[in-house]
Amino acid sequence: MSLDAVLSRIDSDLDAATDRLMEFLRIPSISTDPAYKADVDRAADWLVEDLRAIGIDAEKRPTSGHPMVVGHVGEDTDTPHVLFYGHYDVQPVDPLNLWTRDPFDPAIENTEKGRVIRGRGASDDKGQLMTFVEACRAWKAVNGSLPCRITFFFEGEEESGSPSLVPFLEANKDELKADLALVCDTSMVARGVPSIASQLRGMLKDEFTITGPRIDLHSGHYGGPGLNPLRELARIVTSFYDEETGRVAVGGFYEGVHEVPEDQLRQWQTCGFDEKDYLSSVGYSKPHGEKGYSALEQQWARPTLEVNGLWGGYSGAGSKTVIPAEAHCKITCRLVGDQDPDKLRDAIRAHVEAQLSPDAGVRWDNDLEGSRASVMNIARSEFEAARGALSDEWNREAVFTGMGGSIPVVGFFRSVLGLDSMLVGFANEDDAIHSPNEKYDVESFHKGMRSWARILDALTR
Amino acid sequence: MSLDAVLSRIDSDLDAATDRLMEFLRIPSISTDPAYKADVDRAADWLVEDLRAIGIDAEKRPTSGHPMVVGHVGEDTDTPHVLFYGHYDVQPVDPLNLWTRDPFDPAIENTEKGRVIRGRGASDDKGQLMTFVEACRAWKAVNGSLPCRITFFFEGEEESGSPSLVPFLEANKDELKADLALVCDTSMVARGVPSIASQLRGMLKDEFTITGPRIDLHSGHYGGPGLNPLRELARIVTSFYDEETGRVAVGGFYEGVHEVPEDQLRQWQTCGFDEKDYLSSVGYSKPHGEKGYSALEQQWARPTLEVNGLWGGYSGAGSKTVIPAEAHCKITCRLVGDQDPDKLRDAIRAHVEAQLSPDAGVRWDNDLEGSRASVMNIARSEFEAARGALSDEWNREAVFTGMGGSIPVVGFFRSVLGLDSMLVGFANEDDAIHSPNEKYDVESFHKGMRSWARILDALTR
Repeated sequence: MSLDAVLSRIDSDLDAATDRLMEFLRIPSISTDPAYKADVDRAADWLVEDLRAIGIDAEKRPTSGHPMVVGHVGEDTDTPHVLFYGHYDVQPVDPLNLWTRDPFDPAIENTEKGRVIRGRGASDDKGQLMTFVEACRAWKAVNGSLPCRITFFFEGEEESGSPSLVPFLEANKDELKADLALVCDTSMVARGVPSIASQLRGMLKDEFTITGPRIDLHSGHYGGPGLNPLRELARIVTSFYDEETGRVAVGGFYEGVHEVPEDQLRQWQTCGFDEKDYLSSVGYSKPHGEKGYSALEQQWARPTLEVNGLWGGYSGAGSKTVIPAEAHCKITCRLVGDQDPDKLRDAIRAHVEAQLSPDAGVRWDNDLEGSRASVMNIARSEFEAARGALSDEWNREAVFTGMGGSIPVVGFFRSVLGLDSMLVGFANEDDAIHSPNEKYDVESFHKGMRSWARILDALTR
Repeated sequence: MSLDAVLSRIDSDLDAATDRLMEFLRIPSISTDPAYKADVDRAADWLVEDLRAIGIDAEKRPTSGHPMVVGHVGEDTDTPHVLFYGHYDVQPVDPLNLWTRDPFDPAIENTEKGRVIRGRGASDDKGQLMTFVEACRAWKAVNGSLPCRITFFFEGEEESGSPSLVPFLEANKDELKADLALVCDTSMVARGVPSIASQLRGMLKDEFTITGPRIDLHSGHYGGPGLNPLRELARIVTSFYDEETGRVAVGGFYEGVHEVPEDQLRQWQTCGFDEKDYLSSVGYSKPHGEKGYSALEQQWARPTLEVNGLWGGYSGAGSKTVIPAEAHCKITCRLVGDQDPDKLRDAIRAHVEAQLSPDAGVRWDNDLEGSRASVMNIARSEFEAARGALSDEWNREAVFTGMGGSIPVVGFFRSVLGLDSMLVGFANEDDAIHSPNEKYDVESFHKGMRSWARILDALTR
């Protein structure tokens, strides 16, 4: 039987596949930092080469930001035409001193929970992306061709707000049409529990600078009468929240937020998510979000306003008695339900402006994007087929889960290409994505490839 | 008459004196940053050389930090033996991009308010220190010797908390004994108004880190249930203040703070301080400190708790959806009256610890010092003599002022050496000390030298 042969081929090729991933991980494709522009480009070239080696007609496609990689293989038949999406860019690595190894010199490490591939991007998203590419490589090696028409679509700006994504989708609508998008950028709800993400939170990014005195001041001269932008910023950040309820205190913030239906809540309660472990693994004794919601609901179904960076004044060695002229803040919101990112941005900005003291000002960064939350169309037959395939591979019933993260591309596939997405990923919660010492379990990589082979088989049988 | 000859000599030597100051300013003696250790040392060597050129028996004296420079000249007679103090270290220069020139490549610039010497340390304190050295050089050139016994004592750690000062004073008590300390590190209350600072605020420095999750987290995974140290820090900073009254809300903070006596307040009201100009020159429309006090009282007679640095999370280009493991804060307090820095440090720490949420922690930096406020002994006859000399030079009645800054050495001269201090300085409020584009007016430099010559004459007549 051809599926068995493909699975065997994946098993016997694991070491070589791991070597290929390592090579890919060595390219520091940090998309958010302009200093790494050439490396991002190099990662795209690497992918094009690798796809071509499997006989896929792949190209690097320029954008006004980092390039896209697009590949085509196969002809339309009565089997579905799938578009596979992943991203080849990675998060920044700071704080570098907390890494136990060079983030871009990956290695296999033995840990208490098994063997892992350690390095930036191992889990998010290079390792995940390669599970699909390797499944195709094995399929091709065994069968001489792939089982359906496949479009490969890899982005290099996912970690920096995907500024070129919508223009690219719009300009290449016809070329990127397919029956279903497969996206590998999500995690399993618990170790060993295969998961299909059926709802994602959206995202809103903003950044502002609080201004005060015209220049940095000496606190011996102006300490007392001087307005301090750092204190002003702290007060504004504090005003974002209602400490009693844990809710965001920006007017209109919860417009479009819906409660989770009872039956869905019940499914989540039995999906294998271990709240205690999820919290204690990072040092928390309890969930710190909105009162009255479980950690899972806070993560999957409730919106947030999170401060991702605060800075201003002196942060070097020793001390400096300065009242700085400016203080800076980066925020992101996770959106759910029908929250509208544009309305929310306006509400947050109005809130900040209403909080300002006399003599304080605010400047906004106007280059940051937003995306709505997404709910998958799990009534489609492909979802049941994939659930069966995953259950077979992992020997455990696959589950439909929510997700706290944001994968804006899913919303744009729908709005621009009219395309439903299916999100299947093999990351674990402890992969430390976006953190020092990111890793991807060798089990995730290996069974991930096998899972895709089974899904391709199930979708085309 | 010998004083006139000295003053003429100062006038004719102004260009050469300016060149010497420039040379001194070119040495980037930033004491708080270990990267500049060799430069701080080089500045001490420069001073030793320069003092020796005037016939002063000067030496660089090692400490466990940056060196002291000590010089002696003259024998005990019936004229007072003065100890002159200044500091040769300077503040860091960040944000460097706001400087209009290299901070360590000083130059004379023409401005609307006259000619200035632009560069880091021009005003604080290299330029001020050199007013006294140059006065001595001129005196020596004209008279062949100085008019009294003088000890020169220059510190290289004033901008970094003076860690070696007390041990050095204690170890060299006998050598540093004198009748009166002269300190040149203060400003004039208004342009052209010669000022003797009769009270100084004290200083307390502290630094803390708020800890939360064990590692940096991805806000897609933990945004909601996760405790964010940046939000925690913002709330703690906000809790330092009572927004209604503008007072510091730390329990016990105002213990030892006294109201300014009516007669002193009246003197301050007529001392030439222009509140409107003082505030508007840096972009303020009103004083932002405690309600019910003028800007001058807020600056000279009221205590503060100031945030000098906040940082944590991502501050690079673009955005990063991180919940950081840590958030950092540098604070300083300006102390008045009988406030006890040690008790206050305990009160602030207890306040922060009481504010912490479950799962949040705090780490303190235990290397930072404190000093009490100081009140000068203006009943001594030298103060009246200096006031007369200054009034003659500036053609304007000299005034006794308060000061918002902290000059801890004054307290240590008293407690360790039993020495009263007289603080005479020629800086202007717009000198931008501790800020980008620091400058010292050529008028301050020139008339400063002349003022010291007159004071030396008045003290020894």
